[in-house]
This record gives sequence, structure tokens and C-alpha cells, in this order.
Amino acid sequence: MSFRERLRADDVEAIRTLVAQTKVFSRAEVEIAVEVATAGLQSGEASGYHFLVAEDAGRLVGFTAFGPIPATAASWDLYWITVDPAGQRHGLGGRLLAASEARAAALGCRRIYVDTSGRVDYAPARAFYERHGYRREATLADFYAPGDAKLIYLREIGASAANR
Amino acid sequence: MSFRERLRADDVEAIRTLVAQTKVFSRAEVEIAVEVATAGLQSGEASGYHFLVAEDAGRLVGFTAFGPIPATAASWDLYWITVDPAGQRHGLGGRLLAASEARAAALGCRRIYVDTSGRVDYAPARAFYERHGYRREATLADFYAPGDAKLIYLREIGASAANR
Repeated sequence: MSFRERLRADDVEAIRTLVAQTKVFSRAEVEIAVEVATAGLQSGEASGYHFLVAEDAGRLVGFTAFGPIPATAASWDLYWITVDPAGQRHGLGGRLLAASEARAAALGCRRIYVDTSGRVDYAPARAFYERHGYRREATLADFYAPGDAKLIYLREIGASAANR
Repeated sequence: MSFRERLRADDVEAIRTLVAQTKVFSRAEVEIAVEVATAGLQSGEASGYHFLVAEDAGRLVGFTAFGPIPATAASWDLYWITVDPAGQRHGLGGRLLAASEARAAALGCRRIYVDTSGRVDYAPARAFYERHGYRREATLADFYAPGDAKLIYLREIGASAANR
């Protein structure tokens, strides 16, 4: 297993497949993931997106996309974190998250925000964030659709996070 | 005074001047407004941005930028609303806001979100939204910077808003 920061051309389709596989994401959300990866591939960090790709024997098995929120001092957004279902029980998500946080912290991030859904099928996602030091900072009822709230989670990271 | 939906090439610099004039926005925020206008000019509605420009004797005196939030059923974001300081005491902002809401509602919007700051110099902006039917839905402390919270306001609009 290795982590890589720079996207390659063949990552875009691998990311599409991975995100589609996880079931919870809508078709529109899969397209957003593909757009984010495409923008990162074409424009690098000028896209505003940073990536971390997890590879196992040359195969993409997880990725994160994160970046600074424009016009904020030190707030970053974790746009995506997805791991192969087979890797979800082996702590890959937690390692990918910690590595992404450390990378963001090294670049000046002090607050990481992540949006998720209040829907029942997102319970594992919410438990994942809560287990890794995120707390729910806000709830926007009916944001995604009637009965489907947006939850905003936050983790404050100190300078020490860069040294883990 | 007239309102126009389609951006023209010379609007971009007029928007830069207008936004810079209002003082509350940082240089980074002025650049974001220019980027939004440039994207709208180049790609039209495919940019995800809708605009309403207020003109007085051929001069741009206000504008809004708004659009559907990807992967939501009927939630829109009001990205920008700015009017010439001289117009602020004559209800231009309220008329521009109402016209933008009606346009969004006609396109399927049922919830309009707007982000603003908790800073003292944003008190007039907060009072403006509250006066026009927005309520504070969430507060993200220290989001923009230490002591500078992001406030998320929401107005729910019914089908009737399209008929105003």
C-alpha cells in the first residue's frame, strides 16, 4: 500500500469506478468527483484541489480530495474521501484521512470541514468522522432534498498535526 | 433602472469596481467576484451561475450571482449581491434580491442559502437579509478567520415566489 499526491491520467476513470462502487453516491455526485479529479489533473494545485491516492499493487483503492477554502485564513474542505469497500474494514480510510490532514496542516490548514448527509445510509460515514476527531458543527435541514439534511463536521488541527 | 440577465464583456470590470467600492470585501473576495463573472460570461448557464445586473442610465449599479447547488434537489446559493453605495438607501438591494429569488423560483429553486460574516462590519448585510425573510440557519465559528464566523442564512420560497 502506498500513498501518492500527484494524479495520473488513468486515475480519473479509476476514481469514477471507485466512487460509483460505494453505492451511497448519486450519479450527480459521481460526476462531481470526476470533475474534481479532471480539474486536479489538468491544473494541479492551481485547481484548488489537493489529492491523496492510495494504491495497492498498482491499483487505486482509495483517494481524498481536499483544499483551502477561498477567502478564509486557514479553513480547508475535505471534498472527498472514498476507499474500496474491501479496504473499509482494514483502517485504510483512517490512514488516508490522517495523511490528508497532515498534508493540509503542513500547508497551513488549521480547520478541516467536511459535509455529509443526515440520511440513514450515511450513518457509517458519520461514525467514521466522529471516530476520527470530527464534531458536528452545523445541520442544514432538507438541504439536499426534503428529509435529507447536510451535516457540517469540523476538526480543528493544531500545528502538532503536521508532526504525526 | 432596468434589470438584465445576460452578462456583457464590459460587466466584468464594472463588477470589479463595484465590489471593491463597497469596502467590506477583501482583495481575495473581489477576485472571486471577478472569477464568477468571467465564468458566467464565458460559459453562460453552463457555469452554474445566473446573474441579474441592475443598470441606471447604462451604468452597472448592482448585481447578483446565484445558482443551483450541485447534487441538491432544489437548493440554490446566492453567491453575491452588491449594489452601488448610492443605491443602498433607495431599496435597490431589496428589489434586486426579490427579482433574483423570483428568477430562481421559476427555475425550480425552493431554498436559497446565503453565506455572510459575523463581523461587526457585516451587521448591515445581516440586517438586510433578516429584513427580507432570511433566517440564520447555522453559525460556523472562526470559519473565515479567528473571531470571524460564517453565518448561513436561509429563505424557503414556495411556488408563489415566482408570481410576485
